[in-house]
Amino acid sequence: MTNNVLDEVRTAAVAAARAARAAYRAGKAEPTAGVAPGMTQANMIALPRDWAWDFLLYAQRNPKACPVLDVIEAGAHRTVLAEGADIRTDIPLYRVWRNGRLAEEVADATPLWQEHPDLVTFLIGCSFTFETPLQEAGIEVRHIADGSNVPMYRTNRQCRPAGRLRGELVVSMRPIPAGRVADAAMISGRFPSVHGSPVHVGDPGALGIADINRPDFGDAVRIEPGEIPVFWACGVTPQAAVMASGVPFAVTHSPGHMFITDVPDSAYHV
Amino acid sequence: MTNNVLDEVRTAAVAAARAARAAYRAGKAEPTAGVAPGMTQANMIALPRDWAWDFLLYAQRNPKACPVLDVIEAGAHRTVLAEGADIRTDIPLYRVWRNGRLAEEVADATPLWQEHPDLVTFLIGCSFTFETPLQEAGIEVRHIADGSNVPMYRTNRQCRPAGRLRGELVVSMRPIPAGRVADAAMISGRFPSVHGSPVHVGDPGALGIADINRPDFGDAVRIEPGEIPVFWACGVTPQAAVMASGVPFAVTHSPGHMFITDVPDSAYHV
Repeated sequence: MTNNVLDEVRTAAVAAARAARAAYRAGKAEPTAGVAPGMTQANMIALPRDWAWDFLLYAQRNPKACPVLDVIEAGAHRTVLAEGADIRTDIPLYRVWRNGRLAEEVADATPLWQEHPDLVTFLIGCSFTFETPLQEAGIEVRHIADGSNVPMYRTNRQCRPAGRLRGELVVSMRPIPAGRVADAAMISGRFPSVHGSPVHVGDPGALGIADINRPDFGDAVRIEPGEIPVFWACGVTPQAAVMASGVPFAVTHSPGHMFITDVPDSAYHV
Repeated sequence: MTNNVLDEVRTAAVAAARAARAAYRAGKAEPTAGVAPGMTQANMIALPRDWAWDFLLYAQRNPKACPVLDVIEAGAHRTVLAEGADIRTDIPLYRVWRNGRLAEEVADATPLWQEHPDLVTFLIGCSFTFETPLQEAGIEVRHIADGSNVPMYRTNRQCRPAGRLRGELVVSMRPIPAGRVADAAMISGRFPSVHGSPVHVGDPGALGIADINRPDFGDAVRIEPGEIPVFWACGVTPQAAVMASGVPFAVTHSPGHMFITDVPDSAYHV
């Protein structure tokens, strides 16, 4: 490709990201897998300032599940990852947590920042980011092919605690043909900031997952003959920590409903 | 190699790391490049608890210079990276900073933890960690070959500020034959947790370095005909932030005098 064509591809991808955020700001809600292909997507958790240190330490101690891409300081709502975006409105669906329990899902989180003016917001890498490279390598990403949300599961693996925070690892799952598992591991492994290589290949029972067809978050997907379930650390892990730790108040994205940034996937490729 | 031989290599490397820490604890001081080959080395900075959030945020915002490998909580002195190690005594040489100025260098930092019982300690990846893989690929690491400390330079590149912390990027330099620069970039790039790929290749002036033969820290090294200076982000960057920001009190390692862990290099290979 000439530079001009490359520039056009990049401009189109950023435009797709901005259009998606504008639609979510206007009230549209959808899972974001496959939206604005090539652009980095992010998990979100916002916590009162008193909890920010514990969370940043939790993330540092569990970097595979919680790779921090940006921290928005107390009360602020802009991020360097997306010019002009507002973190209170530009995610398709938010979850509100009170005393460790899911209280409600909302499309506009602005009133929550009024209720808690000192929220510190963490944007965390999302495995949707390496799905475009997987597809470019000819590996079908089932939930995108089927137009559904990625399946996510709570596991029996405990994260390393930090301060008042503890909880189990959450994973996402993609069925991969046995002959492409190595490729999927190597391709995703080059993106350590968005969960990197898989944490487990094969038997769901080894992770404490009783029924692969009943994910804890997202949608079940078909596993075809010859495919193996492959599991990646998932940015819903902070929500598991909110539950397990009884955090008094938190706002997060709804699983699979991510913040779409203006940063191309390639920025996180090593 | 059989598994037995591999086990012996690993056991010997851990034994070398432990022996080095024991010698430093007993008072020996030396630059640690080339010591306990194959084991991860780390930069250290300890700050009063009041500064810990600012620093962890500074590290998150400048991950190439400040990749955090472990955080030791206020007043504690053990790390998961090295069983039985004491962070107050097991580094060969410490620097004590008061009001942003270097006050003294000491071999035993224990009295400083008595003076400031709430110090939070950060261990940060060090480029010495990928020097063994460079050598294994047949790339000479000049300061190891010459038995000196790596040259380090302050640059004209500003880090992204966080809270009260700001400062310039510090880099380390290794002269690399022009035909091996790409290899050195690719090999180090697979170790993003210990500074990863180079930040600059060639002209020192572009980084604001006036004289390559007068490093700000460490020792000058020979640059042979056909070699190009290659610059990596350096874990002395936090010390530049201490100076630029006038931090009231900090303890760090002395440049090139690192904390040697029990973690093999390969743990940080992606």
